Amino acid sequence: MTDIAPILAGDVRAAARLMRDLDDRRPDALAALKALFPHTGRAYIVGITGNPGAGKSTVVDALIAHYRAAGDRVGVVAVDPTSPFSGGAILGDRIRMQRHALDPGVFIRSLATRGYLGGLSRSTFDVASVLDAMGYQRVLIETVGVGQDEVDVMRAAHTTVVVTVPGLGDDIQALKAGLLEVADVLVVNKADREGADRAERDLMQMLDLRTGERDGSNAARSDVTIVRTIATRGTAEGSGITDLAAAIEAHRARAWTGEGATARAKARAVAQLTELVRALLADRAARALAARGGLAEIAGDIVARRRDPWSIAEELLASM
Amino acid sequence: MTDIAPILAGDVRAAARLMRDLDDRRPDALAALKALFPHTGRAYIVGITGNPGAGKSTVVDALIAHYRAAGDRVGVVAVDPTSPFSGGAILGDRIRMQRHALDPGVFIRSLATRGYLGGLSRSTFDVASVLDAMGYQRVLIETVGVGQDEVDVMRAAHTTVVVTVPGLGDDIQALKAGLLEVADVLVVNKADREGADRAERDLMQMLDLRTGERDGSNAARSDVTIVRTIATRGTAEGSGITDLAAAIEAHRARAWTGEGATARAKARAVAQLTELVRALLADRAARALAARGGLAEIAGDIVARRRDPWSIAEELLASM
Repeated sequence: MTDIAPILAGDVRAAARLMRDLDDRRPDALAALKALFPHTGRAYIVGITGNPGAGKSTVVDALIAHYRAAGDRVGVVAVDPTSPFSGGAILGDRIRMQRHALDPGVFIRSLATRGYLGGLSRSTFDVASVLDAMGYQRVLIETVGVGQDEVDVMRAAHTTVVVTVPGLGDDIQALKAGLLEVADVLVVNKADREGADRAERDLMQMLDLRTGERDGSNAARSDVTIVRTIATRGTAEGSGITDLAAAIEAHRARAWTGEGATARAKARAVAQLTELVRALLADRAARALAARGGLAEIAGDIVARRRDPWSIAEELLASM
Repeated sequence: MTDIAPILAGDVRAAARLMRDLDDRRPDALAALKALFPHTGRAYIVGITGNPGAGKSTVVDALIAHYRAAGDRVGVVAVDPTSPFSGGAILGDRIRMQRHALDPGVFIRSLATRGYLGGLSRSTFDVASVLDAMGYQRVLIETVGVGQDEVDVMRAAHTTVVVTVPGLGDDIQALKAGLLEVADVLVVNKADREGADRAERDLMQMLDLRTGERDGSNAARSDVTIVRTIATRGTAEGSGITDLAAAIEAHRARAWTGEGATARAKARAVAQLTELVRALLADRAARALAARGGLAEIAGDIVARRRDPWSIAEELLASM
């Protein structure tokens, strides 16, 4: 059994080891997670997503600097899709944040989506829980891309920030990408670029369209705040970052105190539970397929159109 | 039992009805899909994905015009993430393609990802199979966004085209978004924009980096063709569309004829089977959770930290 005392005391190495063990789906790691659970619930979790190229990582970086300046410890879960470059570690934004690597008040964990078999949300929940139990007051979840996976991941957050930029081709694309669906705070980053006014106007128009279209459990879209930023690496002084932090706090006060808070917390728990069940089922499917010999033969039957894949899948499922 | 004869004869209304029934997971629709399966395998399926704002739909539109001019019938599966705007039908790119609505040689089907519970790939396979059985020589699958879901969807394609544009913020973002992973043909669209040379150079550099890093089953990255386009709605005369079509045919000849073709087809069948099993399991999970009363009570226990979600998920799974 993994000793959870060092993790509760904030020991970074013990936490990193636990996260690795969780990746490997080790049963004792899961037991540790369960034991840590009563110590969670104190961190405020902010999800940050948006179009590729919108400068999410720079915004995350500036937010880290802001929270550090305010004395909060910050944990970051960075979700990188697919790349075999071990989560973008050799190139790109991770490098920009490594400036914080020497700050013991900041812990950054990258998750590659590859190999998670649909369990990305689960892994995000897991890592966020560990960071929460370690006592980080702020946990930032950064996702790249805007697929359904990312939307699911955002369900783990208390406040979701969607970062966009002016002039990203047709502005209507932002709508299509389902971004508005998950946004509590909208950021127009690189606001010194041409087209910032238009981008903000388009976003407001879309928010108006959306009002009343969401399911009843959610607030009206007019609750969404739009903030302009010109985020600069390594400093919270970047124009608009204080406004962004304030918008996050305002959403926190609106959403997570008072009447609606309990219902919201329960909805979040149900979402997490659903994700966990799905992830466990996916594990089971992967194991069943791996254990099943003769997959190559089955594939040959499908290719030759001798048997159809739907019937085979049903058979496999019946045997699970 | 759904009569499949009209569908095999290309009846659009019968096909649309079947697709709706498949959405509703009606057992007789699944039976029809199984019955259609021996009649599939003739369509050539091209997946088209890329960054939001890259102009994918315009490229798809121009490709439709190209294939129509060549006398081929074209089916399109457009995968829109999340939006409750019924698959982007009231705004955006779908409208651009509706010009083809009066052409009986073109059939466009939109899929919203919302509500598919991780079964998006399954639905894409299903619809592509119906279009294949209907006798469309070309099936185009367009996905928006670049999450893991979209990568999974692309496994249904014979050739995958990734569309990008010059000047999309940090070019390195394209790498992070996992785009290169799935590309057989890379398109630099809007190639009349500033930065097209740099975009192409960056892509080539990344392709060089990637060579040899992929798992053995895949061709070296140097097999990827880069094409520049300036796609124009409603015409195949847009600069570069003929080159794009030629690059697709070249990949088809390389990948799907000769020695490697059978292994590739089997790998595709295994991927499809895995997706189907996952989707069926997700259905099972959704049913089990819906059937389970007292979810609100369980959620209350989680919120109060009386019970942890991992243990509850395991219990639920054990009862399935």
